[in-house]
Amino acid sequence: MRDSYGTGEQAAHDLVRSAAQGLGLEISIDAIGNLLMTLPGRERNARRLLIGSHLDSVPQGGNYDGAAGVVAGLAALSALKQAGFEPAYDLAVMGIRAEESAWFDVPYIGSAGAFGLLDPACLSVKRSGDGLTLESALIERGFDPEAIRSRRRLLDPATLRAFLEVHIEQGPTLVARGLPAAVVTGIRGCRRFRHARCVGQYDHSGAVNRAYRHDAVAATVALLHHLEAFWVEQEAAGADLVFTAGELYTDPALHGPSKIAGETRFVLDFRSVSEATMDAVAAEARRAAARLGEEYRVRFELGATSDSPSASMDARLRERLMSLLDQPFEMPSGAGHDAAVFAKMGVPTAMIFMRNEHGSHNPDEALGLADFEVATRALLRLLLDFPS
Amino acid sequence: MRDSYGTGEQAAHDLVRSAAQGLGLEISIDAIGNLLMTLPGRERNARRLLIGSHLDSVPQGGNYDGAAGVVAGLAALSALKQAGFEPAYDLAVMGIRAEESAWFDVPYIGSAGAFGLLDPACLSVKRSGDGLTLESALIERGFDPEAIRSRRRLLDPATLRAFLEVHIEQGPTLVARGLPAAVVTGIRGCRRFRHARCVGQYDHSGAVNRAYRHDAVAATVALLHHLEAFWVEQEAAGADLVFTAGELYTDPALHGPSKIAGETRFVLDFRSVSEATMDAVAAEARRAAARLGEEYRVRFELGATSDSPSASMDARLRERLMSLLDQPFEMPSGAGHDAAVFAKMGVPTAMIFMRNEHGSHNPDEALGLADFEVATRALLRLLLDFPS
Repeated sequence: MRDSYGTGEQAAHDLVRSAAQGLGLEISIDAIGNLLMTLPGRERNARRLLIGSHLDSVPQGGNYDGAAGVVAGLAALSALKQAGFEPAYDLAVMGIRAEESAWFDVPYIGSAGAFGLLDPACLSVKRSGDGLTLESALIERGFDPEAIRSRRRLLDPATLRAFLEVHIEQGPTLVARGLPAAVVTGIRGCRRFRHARCVGQYDHSGAVNRAYRHDAVAATVALLHHLEAFWVEQEAAGADLVFTAGELYTDPALHGPSKIAGETRFVLDFRSVSEATMDAVAAEARRAAARLGEEYRVRFELGATSDSPSASMDARLRERLMSLLDQPFEMPSGAGHDAAVFAKMGVPTAMIFMRNEHGSHNPDEALGLADFEVATRALLRLLLDFPS
Repeated sequence: MRDSYGTGEQAAHDLVRSAAQGLGLEISIDAIGNLLMTLPGRERNARRLLIGSHLDSVPQGGNYDGAAGVVAGLAALSALKQAGFEPAYDLAVMGIRAEESAWFDVPYIGSAGAFGLLDPACLSVKRSGDGLTLESALIERGFDPEAIRSRRRLLDPATLRAFLEVHIEQGPTLVARGLPAAVVTGIRGCRRFRHARCVGQYDHSGAVNRAYRHDAVAATVALLHHLEAFWVEQEAAGADLVFTAGELYTDPALHGPSKIAGETRFVLDFRSVSEATMDAVAAEARRAAARLGEEYRVRFELGATSDSPSASMDARLRERLMSLLDQPFEMPSGAGHDAAVFAKMGVPTAMIFMRNEHGSHNPDEALGLADFEVATRALLRLLLDFPS
């Protein structure tokens, strides 16, 4: 368990730093604790190429989510160094801090913080578990909360040639398809109706016929069923989309086995690599809620969406990586990654997924070394012949 | 609020008894507190005709559910007495105890107890609110728990000519149709899957595509949607049926806005006047759960149904009552009533519903005196010319 800015994450940073020193890489640490391990190039002032991922994990997380990408980067630089390869420009591996929002309820603290993108208010957010604020946690580790408070830019995107991230797949696609690795097409954004609600009327389940009901469960079922059908249509038309209602509940204080439910609360979570698809499905949700609200004589209150934007991976890098896989396969990333922050900053960004069993964010994450090798070799070959 | 065997119900019994004494009716009280108010007939040993309903209410209930039927019976006997009508056989109004299951979680204590039908285990059931057992509550009021313990029959169905119950409608049908009263065709029984469950697998809402999901919410939505469609078909084919899922919830300890839900719990409540219709829909629920469980890669555990049988009203009495209404209208009763117990004991039974606004089991029950008069006049005319 590698808690963000805690002893677990620090132990990972210490281990990785010591390995990088053993490889003879240059070490630097920025004001908020991101670790940079550099194989110097012939031209030190030329734009650098960054390889990176995060070293923290969620509570009760696994060995590979994040950390495997840092190790892949070090393995590639180690191979280059052992082969006596001197790159034209700096190649650096970045061990990124605090990517998981499970600890501070703020995602991408390390990468967004490096670009000066964090809202300073996040300094007072408390860590789950011990309740330490981000500010106190930074100070405890010897870092500088002022960098966040003044939105200081620790990393200039104009100095970066590209950002490459190797990461385990957090879903079952590669396992199901029997493939070792994939090139990521983009990182899904999210449109989430976080606090949706349906208001009907509590009534006797036996005494009120269908035509007179204001049944919040029946109406919500109709809405969710419609949205699933819309999803299937979008998929059939080739769109990238996933739709989840992961929370759905009647009111335990008021519901009952012989009552028609007068209220439901639920979440609608739409994700896609395409902003247009997310806009379309969010608009369809509002249209359907209005129509079905009338049909079922209830009122839907979907509320505002909380949005996180999608991020596109660089087309040229995707193409090059595809050419480097024996079994080329492309897929979107449903989960968010630091790579999304680099892409949003205009840095050409690419990701490689590695096959992983049992999903992620649990202790059963399982990455095979053969699959790690497939991904790391693709990374290495990309570094050896990087498109200029 | 007329709590079963509590001070509220007792106050109602005292009031009704005093009114009946004022009318000169004979009073008797059985071992479990049911109040019998009799207008003696010429032939005291002939089979009696009972008119009755219950005098208790649910917590925060209204004025009319139950009580209005007792008052209607007294009003009819009062009219007969004032007119000097001497019936051929005894006509009696029964003020029934403890019909509502809200207090002791046992329905029909008064009427089922009168027929010796109660499971003696119910004596140790505690009253909601004060926690007094049914046994203690009976003793406190001066009644005899032994009658229930020994399943003693306090009322012999063979001595009864008929049972007639006047009751407010607990749904909105008569209000919606602009009708003052209705003849009840039958009392809906219930097939209830009280503890149904769907077990899937928790997963990342972004990282797992549709084909790999074990989404308990999506599967449950598909099941409920299918059952609503089945309901609409049954209605179109002329069947009497209502279907309600009044409780539906994901696990608050494990669900999350960015998680696919691994579990739902829900109730399926099917009611009909027809046992065949309830059997058909319960079987369809099991078939659909098996099929959709496979389709959605989840496991439905519907469990056993808790059943309450439907009760048919006497065809001849229905027909006679229909002929006594200016605007004849028939409908089923969705809620249970003491009349169902009498019908199940083989006593010819009929019910009249009175228009009531705002549903029942709440303080806003609203019965108009003009509608009360329509129902009570029909009852009176039935008594004056009762089919032999």
